Amino acid sequence: MQFIHADFLLRSKAAQTLYHEVAEKLPIIDYHCHLPPVEIAEDQRWSNIAEAWLGADHYKWRVMRTDGIPERYITGDAPAREKFQKFAEAMPHALRNPMYHWCHLELARYFGIDDKLLSGETAQEIWDRAEAVCREPGFSARGLMVRSNVEAVCTTDDPVDDLRHHAAVAADTAFPVRVLPAWRPDRGFAIGNTEAWNGWVDRLAAAAGMDIATLSDFLEALRKRHDFFHAAGCRLSDYGLNAVLAEPCTEADMAAIFAKARGGKTPTPEEEAKFRSRLLILCGEMDARAGWTWQLHFNALRNNATRLFQGYGPDAGGDAIGDWVVAAPLSRILDTLDRDDRLPKTILYSLNPRDNEMLVALAGCFQRDPVPGKIQVGSAWWFNDQMDGMKRQLEAVSQLGLLHRFVGMLTDSRSFLSYTRHEYFRRILCQMLGEDIEAGILPNDLELVGGLVRAVCHDNAASYFGFHA
Amino acid sequence: MQFIHADFLLRSKAAQTLYHEVAEKLPIIDYHCHLPPVEIAEDQRWSNIAEAWLGADHYKWRVMRTDGIPERYITGDAPAREKFQKFAEAMPHALRNPMYHWCHLELARYFGIDDKLLSGETAQEIWDRAEAVCREPGFSARGLMVRSNVEAVCTTDDPVDDLRHHAAVAADTAFPVRVLPAWRPDRGFAIGNTEAWNGWVDRLAAAAGMDIATLSDFLEALRKRHDFFHAAGCRLSDYGLNAVLAEPCTEADMAAIFAKARGGKTPTPEEEAKFRSRLLILCGEMDARAGWTWQLHFNALRNNATRLFQGYGPDAGGDAIGDWVVAAPLSRILDTLDRDDRLPKTILYSLNPRDNEMLVALAGCFQRDPVPGKIQVGSAWWFNDQMDGMKRQLEAVSQLGLLHRFVGMLTDSRSFLSYTRHEYFRRILCQMLGEDIEAGILPNDLELVGGLVRAVCHDNAASYFGFHA
Amino acid sequence: MQFIHADFLLRSKAAQTLYHEVAEKLPIIDYHCHLPPVEIAEDQRWSNIAEAWLGADHYKWRVMRTDGIPERYITGDAPAREKFQKFAEAMPHALRNPMYHWCHLELARYFGIDDKLLSGETAQEIWDRAEAVCREPGFSARGLMVRSNVEAVCTTDDPVDDLRHHAAVAADTAFPVRVLPAWRPDRGFAIGNTEAWNGWVDRLAAAAGMDIATLSDFLEALRKRHDFFHAAGCRLSDYGLNAVLAEPCTEADMAAIFAKARGGKTPTPEEEAKFRSRLLILCGEMDARAGWTWQLHFNALRNNATRLFQGYGPDAGGDAIGDWVVAAPLSRILDTLDRDDRLPKTILYSLNPRDNEMLVALAGCFQRDPVPGKIQVGSAWWFNDQMDGMKRQLEAVSQLGLLHRFVGMLTDSRSFLSYTRHEYFRRILCQMLGEDIEAGILPNDLELVGGLVRAVCHDNAASYFGFHA
Repeated sequence: MQFIHADFLLRSKAAQTLYHEVAEKLPIIDYHCHLPPVEIAEDQRWSNIAEAWLGADHYKWRVMRTDGIPERYITGDAPAREKFQKFAEAMPHALRNPMYHWCHLELARYFGIDDKLLSGETAQEIWDRAEAVCREPGFSARGLMVRSNVEAVCTTDDPVDDLRHHAAVAADTAFPVRVLPAWRPDRGFAIGNTEAWNGWVDRLAAAAGMDIATLSDFLEALRKRHDFFHAAGCRLSDYGLNAVLAEPCTEADMAAIFAKARGGKTPTPEEEAKFRSRLLILCGEMDARAGWTWQLHFNALRNNATRLFQGYGPDAGGDAIGDWVVAAPLSRILDTLDRDDRLPKTILYSLNPRDNEMLVALAGCFQRDPVPGKIQVGSAWWFNDQMDGMKRQLEAVSQLGLLHRFVGMLTDSRSFLSYTRHEYFRRILCQMLGEDIEAGILPNDLELVGGLVRAVCHDNAASYFGFHA
Repeated sequence: MQFIHADFLLRSKAAQTLYHEVAEKLPIIDYHCHLPPVEIAEDQRWSNIAEAWLGADHYKWRVMRTDGIPERYITGDAPAREKFQKFAEAMPHALRNPMYHWCHLELARYFGIDDKLLSGETAQEIWDRAEAVCREPGFSARGLMVRSNVEAVCTTDDPVDDLRHHAAVAADTAFPVRVLPAWRPDRGFAIGNTEAWNGWVDRLAAAAGMDIATLSDFLEALRKRHDFFHAAGCRLSDYGLNAVLAEPCTEADMAAIFAKARGGKTPTPEEEAKFRSRLLILCGEMDARAGWTWQLHFNALRNNATRLFQGYGPDAGGDAIGDWVVAAPLSRILDTLDRDDRLPKTILYSLNPRDNEMLVALAGCFQRDPVPGKIQVGSAWWFNDQMDGMKRQLEAVSQLGLLHRFVGMLTDSRSFLSYTRHEYFRRILCQMLGEDIEAGILPNDLELVGGLVRAVCHDNAASYFGFHA
Repeated sequence: MQFIHADFLLRSKAAQTLYHEVAEKLPIIDYHCHLPPVEIAEDQRWSNIAEAWLGADHYKWRVMRTDGIPERYITGDAPAREKFQKFAEAMPHALRNPMYHWCHLELARYFGIDDKLLSGETAQEIWDRAEAVCREPGFSARGLMVRSNVEAVCTTDDPVDDLRHHAAVAADTAFPVRVLPAWRPDRGFAIGNTEAWNGWVDRLAAAAGMDIATLSDFLEALRKRHDFFHAAGCRLSDYGLNAVLAEPCTEADMAAIFAKARGGKTPTPEEEAKFRSRLLILCGEMDARAGWTWQLHFNALRNNATRLFQGYGPDAGGDAIGDWVVAAPLSRILDTLDRDDRLPKTILYSLNPRDNEMLVALAGCFQRDPVPGKIQVGSAWWFNDQMDGMKRQLEAVSQLGLLHRFVGMLTDSRSFLSYTRHEYFRRILCQMLGEDIEAGILPNDLELVGGLVRAVCHDNAASYFGFHA
């Protein structure tokens, strides 16, 4: 029997109906991803499946390393066909890992290969068939987005970026997908890495068309770029916090730390923590004023393996999950802004799944009209973006919050082939709800439950972010 | 098909038998709740369902806020009918939240409405039918308790309370429910809020009929009130700890901190931590000597939203889950008392469900004859009082402890309509056990497994707390 | 219907096939246990089931204490038959606890008793039948190992041990089970307990045939013993860390702390933490150089109940689960060694199940050819060695790592009757995979999935540890 078939993961009539009648047809709003805008602008193509799959995917690299494959076939100089062979040989060892489902979904949906399981034995045939598909006219960045029924995507962009690729894409009226920038000013926070930070501040100055000598210059330049991003359709920001910091820091403190670093002296760790803490609050204000949604990502423990970092830089598969204390500092951040109604729409993401319930409970304290589900706990992130992680996130949001108001799935991906993760999410959601109906946990009312599916898979995101505003 | 039907949540023959033959018929011992004693004494009535449901229920307030409903319809001055309308409109958005089950169980059991799902469309009809029910003679605090087959409840009371409402209820021999006080001296711990604390100490002095100048006066007054509560049938105490503190503090330290605060000076946070640590140990001794059970509630992170706290005070929906370190300090508290056999029967509750396994393992270190299950991990508390939370608590207690010795469910509620939560718990328990029988995890022996149901749903609580002693 | 039957826990045809066709027949490699080598050397026998079951099993003691049984029947001087009676009476209260499954599996597999459930009523009959079995010739340490199809076991040994029992067993060519030592130098780390530590260092000196005055003597002696263990077939080490410490400590720091303690002065807690931190790194290097696998056990919170510890010593049932921060220090340890390719094959075990996902993510950062699955997250440990704990460990390893590379189950036990825990694990694994096949989560390809079963239940351990090297 085919592995990826029409009712993949859908075990009950109710689940099948919810998926095929509701979820399957809805367009995709991928409100957080890492697609390189240039690849959309230039309508990127790939000559083979290794190029599409293995070039920059640290998930796959980790699978290969765990399987004992030498680095040469992972990030090294082995030929593409050999890399793919090694990956294919690892595939049968990835049973129960999301990679097994992701790859077979992508083979089925984008390469039309749903009659084979990937393995060392089938690698050559799949390589050949995929190569033929790569040559087809529609098999390009834009073609895949259109074929995947994508309505909008938000990329992840540096405030100093000129957004010209976004402009180029927007100018092409024949391309129906909205490609919007999102604001990720992490490099402005990294004041402890003082030389690199100063370089970035210089670039910010250039982008904003002004000098940056003082903290207030810095903030003004940020605001200018914020306005520029807003004009380009940006409605989301994103902050990578690792540990959540909420150290008290006055304006004068911050100005002094800024001056010290701008003068080339490295701040102490305590000073960096203060600076980061206050800058986050100021960014939150900016986002709130603009009506944006800010996303806070935390409990990532990055660059654990010096060997990987030195050999291949960041995002090479050396990141993991942190177990810092989160609740009290995060509460302080949210409260500081909520007190004066300066809290933006918020999406909280912890990389540690043990935080799910804590986050949903905390989110509930800051809900406020007129935005339904103003404070969100984001879709299962990164290491949690798999069946168990999604179920646990959905369960926590359900039991401690309102699942109906959840803005749903995102790919967080650099690949144009990842839209099947929305399909995966939708199947898991429909299976969960169908199971609930069968168990009498939900009313046997497909219109009622279908409304929930529609809200989570599309409608909430469509209204929450205000892309059309 | 009806949503709340006889076999709601019970999917197997075994589950149905366990529920209908055993669990359903057992009386309720609600050993921890927040019912206002005055409402029992005066046999409270309600003129409509909004009064009964929305007056003081921060669970419902949070649902409404998360749904984007303006505060005016939540805690504000909107008319009752309009508040109910808004709540009804939010209900279809609460699918998978315990509120959906709680409300429909309450509608079915207390209002006789099991043919409609609550929504904006059905709100008027349900309002009308509920209003008629509110006028029925039995629809009162006492009537609902009797109808719910309640055997005993323990309220939550301040040591300075004169317990006259308890006395009034006890004096009415026609009312078959035992209404017992429980001891919650949290305000005596809050020495950092020095002015309010002194006011409370004054009230304690008055209640105990003595002056309180020194620490030993304070402890003597507490002991007098403890005796008074005991005479009134009190057999449980309850401590709200938030973070678990076990700082070393000598008697002299404590006396000095007490003197400082009693003199009107605010202790430092370190002093407060010491004072709280030692007071808890002294309270434990008192409870042990009296043969009481003490309940330790922790990992609540309270009053996160200043806006809510300033607008509506505590318990307005601004509380969340903490993620403090618990194991070592909690171990120190339990060991300090256990060492000399001064450890009371103990129920541990963490608001963070990630602590379940840790708590059950720790409890196991201090078990001691002659009380079976002397150290308990309490029923899934507050945010965890829902299907997933209960299952996880039951699973941890099962796998790391003895489920058979668990003292079972409590409502923790302010409402006379909450006894359906016992029904909910019992159905979930029976479904879990029935599923185990079907899976061959438990022997297919309904007498054996029925004994477990009976123990957890009633008999353990009946013998453990010693209400009749 | 029989409780322990051929398809115990196996609910689907796929699960049954995977178990009976693959898992059931595979030999057992029990790479971490606490069997006393002397008992193997002397081919230990038991006169009754109480001796076999209740002598040293703190799991059973905890069950009995939780059930309210007086200590006299647990660790006290009550007659064996009475102890067994009390235990049998507690058994029906252990439904859903692993003890219920473990005991009935052991009764079925070793005593041939699968027609009765253990309880107070059946205790006498089971006692009698078991006593008869105890008299049978094959019912001995070695007999049980052979009958259980054990291929190899690794005991847990002190570096000062002379391993003569291992030698005696190895010399007996008629006994087909490999009994290998494993290196557990915990007593060398416990420098804060200075007197006992010095005594141990003296024994180490004697075992190594040299004086130990300085740190370098100490390390040389350890290396000598390490070589000796290697020659005796040792390929694993094991470190009990409780909290994970990774404090910076130079060689000079460490030498000074060593000198202080060796001179009889107790180091400060900070000094102890430094010493432990650096010693662990040095031990890791030693293990890596020898090609061993090191096991790091942490988040155990030991000896919580002073009463138990003073009455019965360690391992008396007074241990629990810690909730320390783990990720950052553990990352530092692994990175320090990995940086220069001195990181041994590693198995990480946290006693707190909330750490599962964090650990698997961290492990993924340090995977390195040529060893597939070089960094492992160990089998559900101690309190987690039960159905829910195993499922959660398997799920985390599956979703965040490669289940196929998992080296599988171990007993961690002192008992020769515990090999049924491998059976239990295998049934749970096969049931999980069978369920996945039925749900369409895994391909319906019994050869493919059977390969996974074979790898996890035997083949990975056989190749990973290099016992034959």
